[in-house]
Amino acid sequence: MNGYELTRFFDAAPRWVWSAPQSQIYPTLRQMEQAGLIEGQKEIRGTRLKRTVYSITERGVEELRTWLGTSHAPAPMRDSFSLQALFFDMIDADRAAPVLKAYIAEQEQLITEWRAHREALLAKDTDLLKERLKNRPPAEHDRIAGLKANVFAGQVAVAQARADWARESLRLLTEGV
Amino acid sequence: MNGYELTRFFDAAPRWVWSAPQSQIYPTLRQMEQAGLIEGQKEIRGTRLKRTVYSITERGVEELRTWLGTSHAPAPMRDSFSLQALFFDMIDADRAAPVLKAYIAEQEQLITEWRAHREALLAKDTDLLKERLKNRPPAEHDRIAGLKANVFAGQVAVAQARADWARESLRLLTEGV
Repeated sequence: MNGYELTRFFDAAPRWVWSAPQSQIYPTLRQMEQAGLIEGQKEIRGTRLKRTVYSITERGVEELRTWLGTSHAPAPMRDSFSLQALFFDMIDADRAAPVLKAYIAEQEQLITEWRAHREALLAKDTDLLKERLKNRPPAEHDRIAGLKANVFAGQVAVAQARADWARESLRLLTEGV
Repeated sequence: MNGYELTRFFDAAPRWVWSAPQSQIYPTLRQMEQAGLIEGQKEIRGTRLKRTVYSITERGVEELRTWLGTSHAPAPMRDSFSLQALFFDMIDADRAAPVLKAYIAEQEQLITEWRAHREALLAKDTDLLKERLKNRPPAEHDRIAGLKANVFAGQVAVAQARADWARESLRLLTEGV
């Protein structure tokens, strides 16, 4: 991938689990190249630099595997919607209700997108997965697709729990306890 | 509250929904005071400044109510554990399994803490809630406690969905799809 493709990749992030602002892509690529984790291949057209295509190095794969096999401390808790909901008793129910309804709609949207992405992974029908499977033995393809698809089943379950909770909050707000 | 109490408050954050590093507390208090959202009362003992106790101003309450009644764009997606899980096919199952088990234990711990906090809120038995209810009509107490407790019921449901998902991942990793 080159920097532009990575930017587009992270822009399509609602269905994804991580986002990166465009401003971070190029500096991070340079840092990773200096650290020997990736290497860039410059493509020249005529006398002009067309683009730099990066690929992971052996050392990068080793580093990634170490990170994957390590338990990391959870990120600091920053759930701004729950924080907001904790103080809904300070405003009228008819001001809080639209906020909860917008949140439910947002979770439903995520559920739809993640569910579709899960199906696509199970069908081995995403560009990234097809690319990945080229270098893996066919006997492992189902397992790899199943593991990746399951991550999105988890995202769906979390979004579903959040939507259910928001519906219960809406009921408590408008009908009382 | 004063700065020290706020720091301790955020340190007890596992059961809470938001955390703030100590380094942010004092600068943020100063900024909020300059913006007229809170005001500090200096307590002097003899000739020494003992501490500054802050309270919210009318303008601060108004600002808070506006924020509470507004739908905010969701924070960028940064779910590092799901990102890690997406690539578990790159490492041996016996290296990924302990990472999943540690994650399950972490979620179980959160569930225990949040459940206890929910119970305490329903029983109107937390210092913060007792303080808050002093200024609210008794007829509203059950509703206020119920709304706040429900936020933690939501946190429990999300942590439960994550733990269930991690158990299913563990099964997929070790038994295959």
